[in-house]
Amino acid sequence: MKVGVIGSSTSRFGELWDTPPRLMLKRTIDEALSDAMLSLSSVDAIFVGNMLAGMLGGQKNLGSIVAEELGVSIPAIRVEAACASGGLAVHNGVVSILSKEYDTVLVVGLEKMTDHASDEVAVSLMGAGSSRERDAGLTFPGLYAVMARAHMEQYGTTEEQMAAASVKNHYHATHNPKAQFQKAITVENVMQSMYVADPLKLLDCSPISDGAAAVLLSSEEVAKRNKKREPVWIVASQVATDTLSISKRKSITSVPAAKKAADQAYKRSGIRPSDVDVAEVHDCFSIAEIMALEDLGFYQKGKAASAIENGEVTCGTAKNLVINTSGGLKACGHPVGATGIKQIAELTKQLRGETNGRQVKGARVGLAHNVGGSGAIAVVHILKK
Amino acid sequence: MKVGVIGSSTSRFGELWDTPPRLMLKRTIDEALSDAMLSLSSVDAIFVGNMLAGMLGGQKNLGSIVAEELGVSIPAIRVEAACASGGLAVHNGVVSILSKEYDTVLVVGLEKMTDHASDEVAVSLMGAGSSRERDAGLTFPGLYAVMARAHMEQYGTTEEQMAAASVKNHYHATHNPKAQFQKAITVENVMQSMYVADPLKLLDCSPISDGAAAVLLSSEEVAKRNKKREPVWIVASQVATDTLSISKRKSITSVPAAKKAADQAYKRSGIRPSDVDVAEVHDCFSIAEIMALEDLGFYQKGKAASAIENGEVTCGTAKNLVINTSGGLKACGHPVGATGIKQIAELTKQLRGETNGRQVKGARVGLAHNVGGSGAIAVVHILKK
Repeated sequence: MKVGVIGSSTSRFGELWDTPPRLMLKRTIDEALSDAMLSLSSVDAIFVGNMLAGMLGGQKNLGSIVAEELGVSIPAIRVEAACASGGLAVHNGVVSILSKEYDTVLVVGLEKMTDHASDEVAVSLMGAGSSRERDAGLTFPGLYAVMARAHMEQYGTTEEQMAAASVKNHYHATHNPKAQFQKAITVENVMQSMYVADPLKLLDCSPISDGAAAVLLSSEEVAKRNKKREPVWIVASQVATDTLSISKRKSITSVPAAKKAADQAYKRSGIRPSDVDVAEVHDCFSIAEIMALEDLGFYQKGKAASAIENGEVTCGTAKNLVINTSGGLKACGHPVGATGIKQIAELTKQLRGETNGRQVKGARVGLAHNVGGSGAIAVVHILKK
Repeated sequence: MKVGVIGSSTSRFGELWDTPPRLMLKRTIDEALSDAMLSLSSVDAIFVGNMLAGMLGGQKNLGSIVAEELGVSIPAIRVEAACASGGLAVHNGVVSILSKEYDTVLVVGLEKMTDHASDEVAVSLMGAGSSRERDAGLTFPGLYAVMARAHMEQYGTTEEQMAAASVKNHYHATHNPKAQFQKAITVENVMQSMYVADPLKLLDCSPISDGAAAVLLSSEEVAKRNKKREPVWIVASQVATDTLSISKRKSITSVPAAKKAADQAYKRSGIRPSDVDVAEVHDCFSIAEIMALEDLGFYQKGKAASAIENGEVTCGTAKNLVINTSGGLKACGHPVGATGIKQIAELTKQLRGETNGRQVKGARVGLAHNVGGSGAIAVVHILKK
């Protein structure tokens, strides 16, 4: 498999109260097109990642909205899989190019979440969870708190180690002008923040965000024909699913769907975990980043937490691999439908060497890991220079 | 393009208050698998068409729900484009097979609409419309009423002619044991039913429905290898979009996106409108069927209404082409996410000669026409024996 990423862009993530969703979409898409040095007329189809516009904005049918906004009448397809909507939209874009039905596609994700009362957002988000656990009173932080507690008991993971993931991601975000929180924090800050769902505290949790991200994908042939831009290649795009209810899963100290998707992606591409230079992983909660590093084969079970704590995956002090240079969901922000697409955009810029203060030197291989419904679905992409 | 439909099924459509959505899904999928004489282990990916589960059921992430229900961990992708969600899910399934990433995919659609207050359903449905027209007080029947009035003024179309479309579709549904209304009606019945949005009356409008439909698609190679079942072939799968707001469109006496998708589908397959023996068209309102027959090239502009009235597209009295043997959205029912998939299921059974009292003799070519957001998106499939 070889599909080219020929352009990408990310809007500012954050509380964008003065930016209407359509404007956010338009600007982000325009920027991706100009990054690709491509005109809109070269785009054959659009894939849109969005989770909450129906429930929060009373507006679905985002495919047609994007087409209308751009003034085109090409196929426009909205893909939804909770917080993995963005990654899944990229997967569908990749597959559509491999089909030879489309040569160049735009994949765009957006979410507008901060204009709503927090309980409304929480209820909408739980639309991705199992009704069984929802009825039992569990929220998303609650579900991950259960996983965190199990991980702590089984592997001795500490609250300080979880905090270290947030600290690292905030540090990276200080170098990302698009990030929601461009501000360093300390382990102490995390430990002193209030509990949201014990053992997870406020600063273990990714925020509610507005934002958009876009990538332009082309077939190998078309991407190579464009002499203006060296493409980055997607060499694996794998999806796996699991039960919505975490109580029915094989493991709650890992995310089996992520492990399955990653194993398939490595097999497909011939790339090994040790080949990966930079990865964007789905740290919706700090414990999720720890589990991700284990599920993705970067660390043995129970070994990721101390690695994060020791600065092994921090830009500047890392040995082989840097995690979440964008700031991750925690510090870059988590506009759900955009997140999985932002990951691909960040890796594209990393592999092109365009990320300035957070650049991983000599990065040649990147991996994106996007999870929905507390592990009910996972999407893994591998990118290569 | 050649993708095989190797199995299909449709649940009973109607007010299924005693059937939980998961059970409806499970039964429909089991029936499609047994129709294909295929085991679940042969399925590589799932595409799910659904519009309203998030807004009405508080439950999104339907891809994972289907995977959980079936006990599989394969890719499961929810596609949404309002009332065209089903057709668009089929398109994505077709494209995924052409990519060679998947050999056999399940496309399933469902909607559970009747358990909710009608104003809640109306508000949710308008999530697919333009906010501009929604703010002006227009509902979906209102939007189509505007189109109907324009069509009447421009082409002399009468309320009785529109009524004839409903009468025909109800007649067909008397032969469809899965249809919501298996009951004949007369033009007088339609004319005497109350106005919903002048000139459209209750019996010009498709109902609110529960229901599910599923098809199994395979690559040409895999479909041919299965000696137990003669496949039906999808030879074109085309999508086009338009503005959400009908006031911004080139025409309101036609649906430009449907015309564009149809033109591309004919070009792609080499099939002409006159080759089509049986078609399932998106008659959300009676006027929509009239416009569809013109947009699809079956009749010249302004000529479809009298053709319907004269029984030219009714099973039994038709000359060349029969429209909506399932009963269409009007009489078979319109569980939105399932509708576009039911169309493919109906055509598959027609081309296989398995539709008993509503069978079009010697049918060899079928066409499905699925529209979302009052024409903001259209999907056209052409099937061949």
